Amino acid sequence: MKFNPITPEAVAAFTNIVGQEHVLLPAAAEDMLRYTHDETEDLRYEPEVVLKPANAAEISRIMQYCHENYIPVTPRGAGTGLSGGALAIHKGVILSTERLNKIVAIDERNLQATVEPGVITQVFQEAVIERGLFYPPDPSSRGSCFLGGNLSESSGGPRAVKYGVTKDYVLNMEVVLPTGEITWTGANVLKNATGYNLTQLMVGSEGTLGIITKIVFKLIPYPTQNLVMLVPFRKEEEACAAVSQIFIAGIVPSAMEFMERDAIEWTCRYLSMEVPMAADEEAHLLIELDGNDLDLLFKDAERVYEVLEQFNVGEILVADSEKQKEDLWRLRRNVGHAVKSNSIYKEEDTVVPRAELPVLLRGVKEIGARYNFKSVCYGHAGDGNLHINIVKGDMSDEDWNNKLPEGIKEIFRLCVELGGTISGEHGIGLVQRQYINIALNEVQLRLMRGIKELFDPKGILNPGKIF
Amino acid sequence: MKFNPITPEAVAAFTNIVGQEHVLLPAAAEDMLRYTHDETEDLRYEPEVVLKPANAAEISRIMQYCHENYIPVTPRGAGTGLSGGALAIHKGVILSTERLNKIVAIDERNLQATVEPGVITQVFQEAVIERGLFYPPDPSSRGSCFLGGNLSESSGGPRAVKYGVTKDYVLNMEVVLPTGEITWTGANVLKNATGYNLTQLMVGSEGTLGIITKIVFKLIPYPTQNLVMLVPFRKEEEACAAVSQIFIAGIVPSAMEFMERDAIEWTCRYLSMEVPMAADEEAHLLIELDGNDLDLLFKDAERVYEVLEQFNVGEILVADSEKQKEDLWRLRRNVGHAVKSNSIYKEEDTVVPRAELPVLLRGVKEIGARYNFKSVCYGHAGDGNLHINIVKGDMSDEDWNNKLPEGIKEIFRLCVELGGTISGEHGIGLVQRQYINIALNEVQLRLMRGIKELFDPKGILNPGKIF
Repeated sequence: MKFNPITPEAVAAFTNIVGQEHVLLPAAAEDMLRYTHDETEDLRYEPEVVLKPANAAEISRIMQYCHENYIPVTPRGAGTGLSGGALAIHKGVILSTERLNKIVAIDERNLQATVEPGVITQVFQEAVIERGLFYPPDPSSRGSCFLGGNLSESSGGPRAVKYGVTKDYVLNMEVVLPTGEITWTGANVLKNATGYNLTQLMVGSEGTLGIITKIVFKLIPYPTQNLVMLVPFRKEEEACAAVSQIFIAGIVPSAMEFMERDAIEWTCRYLSMEVPMAADEEAHLLIELDGNDLDLLFKDAERVYEVLEQFNVGEILVADSEKQKEDLWRLRRNVGHAVKSNSIYKEEDTVVPRAELPVLLRGVKEIGARYNFKSVCYGHAGDGNLHINIVKGDMSDEDWNNKLPEGIKEIFRLCVELGGTISGEHGIGLVQRQYINIALNEVQLRLMRGIKELFDPKGILNPGKIF
Repeated sequence: MKFNPITPEAVAAFTNIVGQEHVLLPAAAEDMLRYTHDETEDLRYEPEVVLKPANAAEISRIMQYCHENYIPVTPRGAGTGLSGGALAIHKGVILSTERLNKIVAIDERNLQATVEPGVITQVFQEAVIERGLFYPPDPSSRGSCFLGGNLSESSGGPRAVKYGVTKDYVLNMEVVLPTGEITWTGANVLKNATGYNLTQLMVGSEGTLGIITKIVFKLIPYPTQNLVMLVPFRKEEEACAAVSQIFIAGIVPSAMEFMERDAIEWTCRYLSMEVPMAADEEAHLLIELDGNDLDLLFKDAERVYEVLEQFNVGEILVADSEKQKEDLWRLRRNVGHAVKSNSIYKEEDTVVPRAELPVLLRGVKEIGARYNFKSVCYGHAGDGNLHINIVKGDMSDEDWNNKLPEGIKEIFRLCVELGGTISGEHGIGLVQRQYINIALNEVQLRLMRGIKELFDPKGILNPGKIF
């Protein structure tokens, strides 16, 4: 790939499109800083210019210019990504969607909402809850991440186990293609058998096929009641095994989160919080049941307890106040931050069929023993989606850089053997790119590269990601 | 497109691949007959040969041969399609998946099943119900249609309103590409952020991108209880309006079906069945609530009655036995057959945001008045998916062939204006192809054609469909 650098003429053209105050150059080093990284490890890449367009029309003009002039463009939401997707590794333009931050409409008659991509996920969730509506996808970063980024990475979150991931809530999108053309991908309907599914092709494409400028989501009625419980297990593999058993018993919890003992201990320290734990408890499940009828939830909880009796569990903590529920969720949402604040780390976003979780977990520990790395595991066990945080600790730089990737390959090969894959909700982006051919064969890669070329013939949009 | 005819050498090659008894030639006119049509109007196209391969390997060899020799291949499931997708309009090969009819595995630990594409939908549903599991998609033709066809057309059915359509249950597929290459499209997981979504690109592609040879579905626990009620409305637009109001009240029924008076009357005659109807009732809603707790369903039913009180409804019939529930569902499932047995017809599969249904229905009647056609409307009102059966009655052939398409265009333009599109679950296939540019713009069509060319560079797989 041969790209052109940003010339003064290019800067002038961009300034003409978005206005002086929405163009950032490296001279403004401090303002520029946050556009040089996302939440992936400690990676830093400085773009040549950051542009903050106001709308699809401006984005279209930027893309036309960059397309004509072979200038790479890296789209960026809130920069909370965990695979390096928003990093300007080929320099060029960072195109930030932060000014496209309006909730355009909440259509209560149709249970739909139209939003711009720069709306913060939690802001949107709270806006629809006010109308008694529910937008379930809730990545841990929901307090800061953008809806557009959630779509680009096919984000999930704890409630995906009952409600599905971000992709399951998008009906239609307006996108600007790398050529500058603006189009919608589908229609504002719950069912669509009219041509190929461009909407789902765009979802999860990590900003490589187009820039999302508007999204139509479906909403559902908000469930008014929930129960939250924290279940300690003496054996971590039993915690994983219990997950499948609860589903087999016919119960679909609204969350089913797995946390190793270390994950909880590190997070308690990080948050200065206390969770009572017996010395012999290896792991916990955070289980949430939701619905509209509290009596029914208590009945379901009874059935969950019956399943749990088959396992070696400690004392179950059932949250008895909203405050306690919030605390338990705060604990879970902060595991990532806590682990990462402790050490240099790499996070793997493995996913397998849910009953294979115990096999995966055992495999990770066994591979870790052979490669001499420590891992802290947690994640969305109900979906079979295990986040593996590999902490550097006292591993040498040499081993970290050269030996560890071989261990990661073994983990990913195990995932694929188990019917799973290498990313459940974080995307491939930059950091998993080197492992992509463990998950995808040559035929799949050829088709994907062909799609990329069709949408982006000059390869200017988010180059160097995924493939 | 320039295709080659089937030569004796081609027949010999095919015979070598699938065996003599699985090759049908026009000489076997009677056996060939059912491969000349599907359930779309009275369309007939005779293929040059029908092949019934046993597995993906044989299909791969057939595709390699046809790819090399520019021979068109039309894949076919059970032939229950409603848009002409399985018709061999360019002659060549009909490739029937009828022998790929095994349920390979029902994985109760992971709530997944692996099936071949030729399994009948209802057979699969019943097999999983035996294990306490649920595969919700239930097109009206479920007693005869194939799962592979359901995926190819992105089929829905009444329960889509709560549970989603076929596409929402597929995790992974094995497909044979037009070039003969065999690949899986994804992984057997509930979440996948690893490369572009080839699975959802294949779903709904109407057999134009590849031939599905294996499918991994997700399953959910089977809801053990349900309530079924038939609600008569004095104004059909009020029936449509009530649909949205029930959702806004926070209830998600497992079915919410709309039937015009004519639809019920014609079907009662067709089935020799009786449904009590007052003279002034214009339309009915068939509403089903499901779950695991009958008390809760009765509570939900009370809330449905409260919503219905706002409307001018007649006496609500609540099914008080399994037999009566079955009868009501038999009534609904047979509307299509009943209407079609009455007259030459065309069926349109319109879909709009659900609150726009009353506007669509009024528009259809108004357009019908201007173009002098009668329509019988029914369908999945909860999804905004209205099937419009236009009956020929005493319309002249001249008007039917030349004037009516202009009226259909007006209906489709109205759908698109309302945020909807021209097919919700039947596909574009052959018969809606002429209307595709009402729903899709030039950019979308260019991308879709590009995808087609990428998968099928010689254009041999199901040529002449969609575009």
